[in-house]
Amino acid sequence: MQRILSTELAAHPYEKVRVEGWIHRVRRLKSVTFLIVRDAAGLAQVVITEPAQVATLTEESVVSVIATVTPNSQAPNGVELTGAEEIHVHSAVGVPLPFELHRPALTAALPAQLDHAALALRHPARRAALRISAAATAGFRKALETQRFVEIHTPKIVESATESGANVFELDYFGRPAYLAQSPQFYKQMMVGVFERVFEVGPVFRAENSDTARHLTQYTSLDAEMGFIADHRDVMAALTRTIAGMFGEVTERTGTATPEVPVEIPAVHFTAALRIAGAPADEPDLAPAHERALGEWALREHGSEFVFVTGYPMRKRPFYTHPDPADPAYSNGFDLLFRGLEIVTGGQRLHRHADYVAALRAAGEPPAAYQGYLDAFRYGMPPHGGWAIGLERLVARLTGAANVREAMAFPRDPRRVTP
Amino acid sequence: MQRILSTELAAHPYEKVRVEGWIHRVRRLKSVTFLIVRDAAGLAQVVITEPAQVATLTEESVVSVIATVTPNSQAPNGVELTGAEEIHVHSAVGVPLPFELHRPALTAALPAQLDHAALALRHPARRAALRISAAATAGFRKALETQRFVEIHTPKIVESATESGANVFELDYFGRPAYLAQSPQFYKQMMVGVFERVFEVGPVFRAENSDTARHLTQYTSLDAEMGFIADHRDVMAALTRTIAGMFGEVTERTGTATPEVPVEIPAVHFTAALRIAGAPADEPDLAPAHERALGEWALREHGSEFVFVTGYPMRKRPFYTHPDPADPAYSNGFDLLFRGLEIVTGGQRLHRHADYVAALRAAGEPPAAYQGYLDAFRYGMPPHGGWAIGLERLVARLTGAANVREAMAFPRDPRRVTP
Repeated sequence: MQRILSTELAAHPYEKVRVEGWIHRVRRLKSVTFLIVRDAAGLAQVVITEPAQVATLTEESVVSVIATVTPNSQAPNGVELTGAEEIHVHSAVGVPLPFELHRPALTAALPAQLDHAALALRHPARRAALRISAAATAGFRKALETQRFVEIHTPKIVESATESGANVFELDYFGRPAYLAQSPQFYKQMMVGVFERVFEVGPVFRAENSDTARHLTQYTSLDAEMGFIADHRDVMAALTRTIAGMFGEVTERTGTATPEVPVEIPAVHFTAALRIAGAPADEPDLAPAHERALGEWALREHGSEFVFVTGYPMRKRPFYTHPDPADPAYSNGFDLLFRGLEIVTGGQRLHRHADYVAALRAAGEPPAAYQGYLDAFRYGMPPHGGWAIGLERLVARLTGAANVREAMAFPRDPRRVTP
Repeated sequence: MQRILSTELAAHPYEKVRVEGWIHRVRRLKSVTFLIVRDAAGLAQVVITEPAQVATLTEESVVSVIATVTPNSQAPNGVELTGAEEIHVHSAVGVPLPFELHRPALTAALPAQLDHAALALRHPARRAALRISAAATAGFRKALETQRFVEIHTPKIVESATESGANVFELDYFGRPAYLAQSPQFYKQMMVGVFERVFEVGPVFRAENSDTARHLTQYTSLDAEMGFIADHRDVMAALTRTIAGMFGEVTERTGTATPEVPVEIPAVHFTAALRIAGAPADEPDLAPAHERALGEWALREHGSEFVFVTGYPMRKRPFYTHPDPADPAYSNGFDLLFRGLEIVTGGQRLHRHADYVAALRAAGEPPAAYQGYLDAFRYGMPPHGGWAIGLERLVARLTGAANVREAMAFPRDPRRVTP
């Protein structure tokens, strides 16, 4: 007998069907026991009048139930299962659960949830965040493919600790040192020379010893890079379309309400951003409090949950950043803030070989160490730029999770490499 | 003036347009120079009658050309560009190229291509393989989403060197050892407890010191895992639909001919496979020559470029493998061979906690080291199974590439971590 998912039972009234899933809850009343079975789609209620059938059943045990679909407007999806013929136990749980899954919210503290991730992630709220993550990722790819971007896969093991040497993980590569890539930056730029527009969804690694609610040592980076741009504003426009596509997909697939993405997201220059945030004019970067103030400003002044900050000072951006031709102390780089948190960094990059050599020398880096990367520019590259979205940050901001760890199945931080 | 891609020029006869791209070739004839411009879509021919305009132009320089679209049945796409008003050079190549890109095949040997990947990947043949890879990946996800699978992202940094301890990369994790994940196996199984059906596209790492044409130290694994199966045959059926979807997408997106995937791929038991391959009956595994012989047999006897081998001996499969209930020396594990090469490994897994504890003890492994993973089974798991497809192997087999490195942008092997 073919299995029917919980959410499809209503289409089979009075039929005998098979339902399979986890015992979400056992409610033993005087004359009847309600068995709530959880499957990938939702919950089904099984009404048991023969106590012997469920005497030994425990929560989270996995069962297969054959019973009859009976309309009942009080039950989930308007139906319940009655007259259960057979309750087959695929696997029985013989130990107490460390926390219950059938409460509206998990009562266990986050560390306990993370310790028992295999169990905690089954809770509908935790599960929902990961479905949103999957939908956002699908929306990212869909929006970019519509815009002619091609998917790439780049190396996560690299020879040198580039970009910002201090925060890389070192590994033993057949007796030599190698490093985990902090981003696909160099590779996606090189691939602009091949496909003009590329994207990658993949893990990036940061050996940053900061145990905050918004840092992870591995996270999912949604990267894109595009050639033949006029400047960073073309990148911002493509990003805006992409974010809109992601949120659209989240709503379509999960029913989650998402904020409207303006056709043109308000953008403020870094110098104006400092003024709005009430920060001193000589600050080289925006602190979290400044970002929050800018988020409030954008909502108040523009009704937008998003705001671009452009023109970050060159001295705070990486060597490949393209300066603002009108004022070379500032860059054609930008951040996108969502609800007062930076979730995207992007910008226009340098594209001429001589500019790279000069930028590396100015940064005190030997160009020879970047040979494979510089090849791309030596052999011709168009004006280009791109961005990196932090998936877990975006999802946490969207779901209102206080901690980015709630937006990832098995988070990694300086103290956690398990499960 | 908006840019028009090379392949869309024919829709703009006699219009003045902007074309942008790389100088693929400069052919200087007596009275005319042909400039072949390569963009993401293809090639465009620009006819130059004023030699001064192109006197200094070099191949792979990036240009923007404004000219008039003129029908010419001899030219690529039936049009050429004439009367060029302006040739703007975005970036000029001032050095000789290490190899030419305009020949039908790259003449450089593979190591030279890999050394200069940023240039070599621009060659239409190399580029085509990566487009096939992108299409196959998109087809994988599409086929699985149709079958209710949910995308997941799992940790690449893990605490213990599980599965097959010898072949892992060790890294320094804030002063402690940690390892690069060889596969998302444990995590995708745990996530079956959450979503029933999951998939992941991501990098996996093998510290195997073998410098062959089919091994990489990082490759892209297309993983899936599904719950509530009867046995491994349900997994094989889902895999067959998925491979068909992948090949369908490759043909649709790239026009590449792909072999027909039979609705039911022929399957032979391991013991029969040894006989067919002419191998001794006590061999514990199939050698490459045996796989080739089986590929020939499947084509000859069944007209299929694919063949499943099922029932591999338990002693050669990992501890989580489900035995064949009818003969527990053999497993419910399978490999899928494509044109005589293993491109997928999969099978049914154990799903009861007690079976895991027994299997780990038998393997001499302390169950305590697997606590987070075993949690999933302690708290209830359905019968399940899954597979892992090696993306680069599949693409190399499809394109006929002699070396799997040709199916990856920046391959990693024991001697190569650059570019």
